[in-house]
This record gives sequence, structure tokens and C-alpha cells, in this order.
Amino acid sequence: MNIDQANDEATERMIEARAVLVGVGKARDVIPGMRDDLLMHAGPPITWDRASGPLRGAITGALIFEGKATDEAEARALVESGAISLEPCHHHQTVGPMAGVTSPSMSVYIVENETHGNRAFSNMNEGYGKVLRYGAFDDEVQQRLRWMEDVMAPVLKDAIEASGGIDIKALLAEALHMGDEGHNRNKAGSILYLKALAPRVARISPDAETAAAVLQAIGDNALSVLNPVMAACKAMADAAHDIDGSTIVTTMARNGTDFGIRVSGLGGRWFTAPAQIPRGLYFPGYGDDDANADIGDSTITETAGIGGFAMATAPAIVTFVSGTPRDAINATMEMYEITHAEHKYFNMPALDFRGTPTGIDLRKVIETGITPRVNTGIAHKEPGIGQIGAGLVRPPMAIFEEALVAFAEHYGF
Amino acid sequence: MNIDQANDEATERMIEARAVLVGVGKARDVIPGMRDDLLMHAGPPITWDRASGPLRGAITGALIFEGKATDEAEARALVESGAISLEPCHHHQTVGPMAGVTSPSMSVYIVENETHGNRAFSNMNEGYGKVLRYGAFDDEVQQRLRWMEDVMAPVLKDAIEASGGIDIKALLAEALHMGDEGHNRNKAGSILYLKALAPRVARISPDAETAAAVLQAIGDNALSVLNPVMAACKAMADAAHDIDGSTIVTTMARNGTDFGIRVSGLGGRWFTAPAQIPRGLYFPGYGDDDANADIGDSTITETAGIGGFAMATAPAIVTFVSGTPRDAINATMEMYEITHAEHKYFNMPALDFRGTPTGIDLRKVIETGITPRVNTGIAHKEPGIGQIGAGLVRPPMAIFEEALVAFAEHYGF
Repeated sequence: MNIDQANDEATERMIEARAVLVGVGKARDVIPGMRDDLLMHAGPPITWDRASGPLRGAITGALIFEGKATDEAEARALVESGAISLEPCHHHQTVGPMAGVTSPSMSVYIVENETHGNRAFSNMNEGYGKVLRYGAFDDEVQQRLRWMEDVMAPVLKDAIEASGGIDIKALLAEALHMGDEGHNRNKAGSILYLKALAPRVARISPDAETAAAVLQAIGDNALSVLNPVMAACKAMADAAHDIDGSTIVTTMARNGTDFGIRVSGLGGRWFTAPAQIPRGLYFPGYGDDDANADIGDSTITETAGIGGFAMATAPAIVTFVSGTPRDAINATMEMYEITHAEHKYFNMPALDFRGTPTGIDLRKVIETGITPRVNTGIAHKEPGIGQIGAGLVRPPMAIFEEALVAFAEHYGF
Repeated sequence: MNIDQANDEATERMIEARAVLVGVGKARDVIPGMRDDLLMHAGPPITWDRASGPLRGAITGALIFEGKATDEAEARALVESGAISLEPCHHHQTVGPMAGVTSPSMSVYIVENETHGNRAFSNMNEGYGKVLRYGAFDDEVQQRLRWMEDVMAPVLKDAIEASGGIDIKALLAEALHMGDEGHNRNKAGSILYLKALAPRVARISPDAETAAAVLQAIGDNALSVLNPVMAACKAMADAAHDIDGSTIVTTMARNGTDFGIRVSGLGGRWFTAPAQIPRGLYFPGYGDDDANADIGDSTITETAGIGGFAMATAPAIVTFVSGTPRDAINATMEMYEITHAEHKYFNMPALDFRGTPTGIDLRKVIETGITPRVNTGIAHKEPGIGQIGAGLVRPPMAIFEEALVAFAEHYGF
């Protein structure tokens, strides 16, 4: 078995995957294995007793949304009794930002990898402030979710279907030329998404006021495209998974307690260790003491070669996550040290159109002692509060060490 | 008289001008001095016999649009007889890209400088391909102009008015963080413009199909915001004009035959010399032999501190105008040599958020021997054809020399 060849195959599949947003559907109707007693969440598997504040808050909010609980105590009882199961989004071809909690009645984006045929899913972005994904769950959050579900989702469904599919890979390639890195900065991508949708939203909405409200919600939210982008990256990463003998990392995800990875050649096994507190910039009035540990599936972007790996093309992001434009270039240069390939379609003008560093090679992480760079939002550690900042974080080295040992054992080195 | 102080005042006025798009109106109704027998054009004054092919083509097209001519021979007769006058857009607080021909019945954007109270105007952008501003004038061009006038302009007028005004300065500052330089690359700016308009267009259009068509036209045209941007830059540059003792250049404009400048401390006087052929990248099938000399008022962007002066923030533009990302940074660095100030609101993340070089100082151009860098489209030299490429150009040094001599004479040095 030749590991380099396996990694060539894995990264080529990741890079050649053509991820197209093809529709919207209720989670229970479209996500394989979704069921009425299931909530999906970000990161590796977890139980209620080990769940962080924002994850507990989001679980509570999702059960209120489903009409199954009215407060955190009821939510806890349902989960602890086993009446409601928790499983990772990643076990269901799905990814969710921050807490990532996705319940059966929520509408999700459907992304299809037209090269290899696999699908991936992600919920819809709520915007900023007090939102479910950061652990808030009060009436304001519920009303927003209700509007998204009842008003926005049907319009987006029809608009996306009428478009014949929106090529998220092409959109991302363009956004990377417009100062986005595709994870924490999706300003350009979100208005490219608006551009693709706008005429169709105007044409198919039930009335002008609905069209206006949906266009406003998509346009005003600089993260509106994050969720289709994450699903697109998931479709790319999944295409690279299960290649015999490959040391490429195909999942990086955090549940607010643990950071977990999975490796192409090691099937479904998770390698986990405690997640870190991100270092970055806090909103006024908040600091390190308020911060929850790293949370969310949005690290799927770095897994697919963008996000923190493409910082060099997004110098303006440093005003949001801290650092200088020089640091942003250094971040990308460092990631070339631990990746197997350079992306063929995602390139960075500032680096003479060099392809982004793509496909984390477990071996290189160990050899160089360099862990992946991740851009992320920072959630308050208590349920019910929300986002308090944004910054940078790295996974613990231990999970890569453990994975390499497992790889050696599995393949009999 | 202290020239430095005068230049401080001129550049501060230019930089502090807050240019807001406040409306749309017919040129004859809103532009000071516009009249039924007048056509405005880009650049310094010119007569039919010296006009270039694309300018003659655009004049012909505008007179067909006005119902006053049916072909080039009739257009020529009207202009040569004096039945139709030609005057620069710049004499009427107006700017127009490429040929810049603006006729009385055309709708124009109205931009107001809320800091100093002056207004500026620009026509609406037609998109790419066979268009009036590049000298095309056939039925296809006329139908497009008619649709813009009859369908798009009323919707944009209502949408802009309903918005309470769109802050083009703020939009530009944002677009400069998204890979635009604001002259040849307005991809981000145009979809930021779409974002500002979309909900209002949906709400205000007479029907859903009209809303869809207008949103498609604005979204699909990566130059849709160029014209409001040019009017905004004109409002900024005009705010800096007529400062006694200032050597700041407040107009740079080309009519396809001559390149002309005007200077803040020298009133309305033009200094002109033959325009150059831009050097750049041609569309397939075209080359230098087909190119018209430099044309258009869009150099108002460089005059106000963006465009070629902000190349460092738009490395992706080199795929369109030639060169490398390093050249783009060098272009901006060079422009600091000939400018008086650094912009307070337009800054470039890639240069550690340094302000763009703003306010060309006539004296520095002469001292350094460096002429301003201009990004531009390239028109075919024959009327009726259109755009054939894009590239870089500089004004002739002679006009700066002549202006400095005039300055010395005027102020008695």
C-alpha cells in the first residue's frame, strides 16, 4: 500500500468534487437516518452531562421549536431518558455551524456533489446576535426560526429549484477573489448568493412583501451563504473519505467540549480530545472568562482547503479575528506545511493565484508539529446568551498522535 | 499664498465629501445647463471633425435614441450645422464612462455630496458587449437603452428614493476590502449595490417579472455600480475644485482624441494633449491596431484616489488588465509619490489598511516624472463595434508641464 498514492486519490476527489446547491427540504424528509426522536449536533458524539452551555441551549431551543419541551429542564429530561437521541450531524452527511443542532422539522439545504454523486446537508443561517446556534433559545429566537421555516424556506426552495442549482464551488472560487476566506468571512459569497437568488425570489414569492423580506434577510446576513458553503465542503470532504491507506483528515469538528477528527483511511472512528478556548477579539463587555470552548462543524471549511487555510486572500478579516494582514499570509503559508495538495480551483490572487493548501496529512501534522489553523466564532459558555466574539483556534495535537498510532496499528506498520 | 495649505484644504474636502446616491431623473430635468439641443460627452471639449470613431458612434446612437437622426451621416450633419451642440459632461457636474454621451431624455443618477452640498450626475450602465458607450448604436443597442429608460430607470428611481439614499462612499470603502479597485473592477461594489436595492426593487416594481428583470440586470452587470461610483468621485473631486493656490488635479478625462486635466487653483481651464493607446489584454481576435486612444470620464476614480491608485487592494484585476499581483502593489506604491494625502476612509487591507493615495499634486508629477496610472477599457477605433479589451494607460506628461507653467504665470511665481 502506498500512502502517497492514496492521498493523491483522496485529495483529487476532494478537489474535483463539484458541489451544487440543488434544493431545500425538511430534515426528516431528506437526510438519511433522520428520525422524529433525533437531534443532530456539531462535533463528535456527546451526552447531555458532558455537553457545554451553548449546546444545551441549542438542544433546548430545538425541542421548543419541535413543540416537545418548554424549558431546559424538560429538554434535559427528554435527552437523559433516551426519548430524544443525540447524534453528530457528521453521521448523517450533515454539518451545522456552532452548536449545529438540527431537528426533524427544520428545513435544510441539499448540496449534491455532481462529480461523485454524494449529497450533504446543512441547516439555514439565522443571522447574527441571539441565535440558536450560539445557544440562545428564547421567544425572539423561536420567532426567527418560525419565520425562516414558514416563510423563507419555501421561497428559497422554489428559487433554488428554479435556478437549476447554484454551483457553490464556483461561487466560492469567486468569493476567494473578493476577500472572503469562506469560513468567518463570507461577505462576498453571501451577496453572490443573493445575486444568484434575487431574480428568482422576486419571480416566485407569493407576494412582493415576502420577496422583499427574504431578499433583505439573505442580503443583510453576511453569513447567509456559510451553511451552503459548509454543506459543499462536507460533500467535498466526504468524497475524499474511505480511501484505503489515506492519511488525509476528512472531518474536523467540535461539540463545545471535544475536538474530533476522522481520517480517510480509518473509516468512521473519531479521535477526540478537549477543545480549546479560541483566542481572538471579544465584543464589548466580554472576555476569555465568558468564552465556551471551540464549537461547531464549520471547521469543515478548513478540512476542504479554505477558511483559516485561505487567510492570505482575506486580509480584511483580521479586524474580526485579530492579527495583521501579514499574519494572515503567514497562516496560509504555514498550512502548506501540513497539506498534501494545492487546490486547483480555489486560488488566491495575493499569492500569485496559488491554490489553497488542501488535504491535511496526518503524517505532516506529526512531523512538523504544526496543527491546523481554524477561524471561528466564540460562544458564551452559558446557555441562552449567544456570540461574544471571533478568533483563531487549533485542535489539540493529541488527536493527531492518537490517529497516527491507530493508522499504524490498522495497516500493520 | 501657501500651496501646501491650499492642497491640504483641497484634499481634505475631497476626502470628507460624503457622496450619497439620492435619486434618478431625466438629464434635461435635473442636470444644470442641460438643454434639448445638447449632447454631453466624455473628456475635454471636442468637435465632430476631431472626434474618434467610438465617440462619433455614441453621438449617432444618442441622436437615434432621441429620434433626431437615423444614421451617422444625419448625426454628423446635425452636429456640424450647430443644430446639436457638444459639450463635456464635466462642464455640467456630470461624468460618463467611455464615450460618455448623455442626451436630454436619458435618465441619470443623482449623487449628492452631503458634506459640502454639491451634486454630480452620471448615466446608467448598459452592461457589456455592444453598447453605446463603446460606440455601438444599432437596434440591439437602442432596444437596450429603451428598456433601461422605460422599465429600469423608473424602478431604480423609486427604489433609491425609498431607500433614503445609498451611501456610495461607504459602499466603496467596503468594496475596496472585497477586491475592487472601483474603476475596472466593480464586482463587489455592484453586488453591494444590488444588496442595497433588492428588497426595495421587489417591493416597488409594478409586477414580479419587472422586479426580476431589473434585479437580473443589476446583478449580472459587474459594472452596474460604476456610474454611481463615478458620479460620487465627481462630487468628491468637485468639492476640491477652485481652491485658490491649490495644485491638486481635480479633473482627468479623455474624449478618445485628447487627454485633458483641470487643476483646483486654475478654474475651468483645460490642459490637453493627444491621448495614448492603452496597453493591456485584448479580447480574442483584436489587437493594438484595432484600439482607439484612451477615452472616458472614468478617470474621475483615479482623480479621487481609487481605480489605478488602489490596485494594491485588487490583485485579481491583473487577469483583466494584465500584469502580476506584485505589479498591482507597485502601482499603488508609485502613486503615493505623486499624491498629497492618504485617504481617511478608503483603505487597503493588503497594505496594512493604509489609505489610498489621494489628490494628484501637479508639482509632484513634474518633480518625479511619474504620471498617474489609469485602469481603462479599450474601445475599437471604428464606430459601431464596441469594447475589445482592457488595460493600463497614463496621461501625457506635457499636460502637467503646461499646467504647471500656467500655474506659475497665474500666481506670479
